[in-house]
Amino acid sequence: MKKRNIAILGSTGSIGTQALDVVRAFPDLLAVSVLTASCNADLLIAQAMEFRPKAVVLVNPAGYQQIKDALAGLDISVFCGEEALEEVVQEETIDVVLNAIVGSAGLKPTIVAIKNGKDIALANKETLVVAGELIMDLVKKHQIRMLPVDSEHSAIFQCLVGEEANPIEKIYLTASGGPFRGKDQAFLQTVTKLQALKHPNWVMGAKITIDSASLMNKGLEVIEAKWLFDLDVEQIDVVVHPQSIIHSIVQFTDGSMKAQMGLPDMKLPIQHALTYPLRKTNAFERFNFLNHPTLTFETADTDTFRNLGLAYQSLREGGDRPCVLNAANEVAVAAFLEDKLSFLGMSDLIEATLCQQKKVENPSLQDLLAIDQQSRIVARDLISSL
Amino acid sequence: MKKRNIAILGSTGSIGTQALDVVRAFPDLLAVSVLTASCNADLLIAQAMEFRPKAVVLVNPAGYQQIKDALAGLDISVFCGEEALEEVVQEETIDVVLNAIVGSAGLKPTIVAIKNGKDIALANKETLVVAGELIMDLVKKHQIRMLPVDSEHSAIFQCLVGEEANPIEKIYLTASGGPFRGKDQAFLQTVTKLQALKHPNWVMGAKITIDSASLMNKGLEVIEAKWLFDLDVEQIDVVVHPQSIIHSIVQFTDGSMKAQMGLPDMKLPIQHALTYPLRKTNAFERFNFLNHPTLTFETADTDTFRNLGLAYQSLREGGDRPCVLNAANEVAVAAFLEDKLSFLGMSDLIEATLCQQKKVENPSLQDLLAIDQQSRIVARDLISSL
Repeated sequence: MKKRNIAILGSTGSIGTQALDVVRAFPDLLAVSVLTASCNADLLIAQAMEFRPKAVVLVNPAGYQQIKDALAGLDISVFCGEEALEEVVQEETIDVVLNAIVGSAGLKPTIVAIKNGKDIALANKETLVVAGELIMDLVKKHQIRMLPVDSEHSAIFQCLVGEEANPIEKIYLTASGGPFRGKDQAFLQTVTKLQALKHPNWVMGAKITIDSASLMNKGLEVIEAKWLFDLDVEQIDVVVHPQSIIHSIVQFTDGSMKAQMGLPDMKLPIQHALTYPLRKTNAFERFNFLNHPTLTFETADTDTFRNLGLAYQSLREGGDRPCVLNAANEVAVAAFLEDKLSFLGMSDLIEATLCQQKKVENPSLQDLLAIDQQSRIVARDLISSL
Repeated sequence: MKKRNIAILGSTGSIGTQALDVVRAFPDLLAVSVLTASCNADLLIAQAMEFRPKAVVLVNPAGYQQIKDALAGLDISVFCGEEALEEVVQEETIDVVLNAIVGSAGLKPTIVAIKNGKDIALANKETLVVAGELIMDLVKKHQIRMLPVDSEHSAIFQCLVGEEANPIEKIYLTASGGPFRGKDQAFLQTVTKLQALKHPNWVMGAKITIDSASLMNKGLEVIEAKWLFDLDVEQIDVVVHPQSIIHSIVQFTDGSMKAQMGLPDMKLPIQHALTYPLRKTNAFERFNFLNHPTLTFETADTDTFRNLGLAYQSLREGGDRPCVLNAANEVAVAAFLEDKLSFLGMSDLIEATLCQQKKVENPSLQDLLAIDQQSRIVARDLISSL
């Protein structure tokens, strides 16, 4: 495998730091061209000193001068501001852009990267939730690889290797069920931020951990899967699997199913995306059946966890609905983390935002960017009026 | 896919009749060139009338005239005797030879078929148990496809599609555990033929059902897997999975595992082997998690089920040991089915036969055929002296 130069968007987050662990483990295969972070200047400086990228971006301008000073004389270009993301992904040496930005802010740099012929390792599911059809059209047009990093989509992707000629009958996305699996609405009424931030199996960032507790994460993954694997919504099932050992399952039209399994560790799908199609030997802890003698499966409760139902409904309705859903959810999660909204209030807010925003069919990218902003305003207004 | 002409060796058995169900379902893709049976003349006649092969063989000469008369005027050549198997697999139009013969009698026709450039769909695991190294050398030399039909090996094969560049770290062969899972030696002492013939999940022929009850079937599969997938014995683990939903698992060197799953139905691996690399839509019942909410896994008990331990030991020792093991087991199962040997007596007989036969290193094919015969004589003598 030719050495690959990686741009990591969101390098100081959970996915970003684990991606750098992978790069560190394979210095002959992987190098870092670009690192970008939202606001953690100290960590970005440390990462830049170690990996010596050609450029770094801090989105928040407040830390710009600190980084500039710290990296002076190291031949590393330093930028700040959100627009700089769209500049640095064009950097000539980049082979793969790992997009680990949180939320729909990941959309624009992805588009620029694709148009510049870069492969995408996609951890930012909101990109496909907001503009899946347009993005996949660009992927085809520019003939780049879209490599999923979400563990579920990586599982499906791994199961589809070598099966290109064989249609998918359906896929099962597995869900841990989160910390509130089996609870009823009365319980969810009382849920605190601290409870919601404790995921039973996966160590992840705050936004995705809340989304996992509300099952919105699985809803976004259903939408992401539709576009990544060119499926109808009826071909995508969610099955709750509390042990998080089977990461997802493909069923082919002959009835045969293939599953990808392992311990829940995001480093594995990250490594797979960065070294694909090769699997490189690593020291990750191995799965052992003796420690996991029982794997269980249950249906997802979309009555109690309304966000999953809302995500399915928005995908069925199509048009701008998933974009509105996602924008309202981002506002809802932020408000929940600031104690301005209850756990169940998040679903109410998303539903109300979808109601207030008139449906737009066949939105263009410009439409979607405007609808994303407009939906956030509507959602914030709804919170203010509570 | 170009239409494939199939020779089915053992067409009146469990695998053979299910293979004909598959051929019947895909008349545009599959046709029958040759059918052979051991002694069921009536069924062979009915199959020949329906599928109109170019030739049929009845191994037992007793039914020859009956078949000759029944098929008169149909332009179907009729042969009898074991040697005829080696003639008919050379038939010009044959693309794939499905070997569903029981026991090491399947070895010689497989070799002739490979040398004549035919792909092999292998349900006869004894072929690779007896002469795995020699057979796989021939497969390479004649550049034919060796397509596994055993559900476990088909599962591994399906998981390896598209992963040709990626080494295997280990494989897990799943075992139902058979009807006596969890029982102790005191219980096994009392086991009857009728109890041993009742498999909890799979409908199969008598020989393989007894082998499943004693776990020798899994032992033979370990040996078969070693040769099919070019593994060391330490890379092959057996895990007991009573629900028989996960058919086997590959673990790659990055720690990622891929499993093939589905309801236990031999028609699926048969169809996969016959239509590979395509998966064709069928009407087989689909797996549903609601009906199988719990999948469990346990270690295999090689102390109680000594046959599995003996198989591992013979594979570690190498040379002619697996051939002797298999021959002694065939005699043991036949004697058990004739009430001449107890269930646990089968392990004693296999161990004693291995003890009496001096080990031969690097046996040739001629050596192996002689050792197979000699081991049967030793085993039968041991039974007579009981």
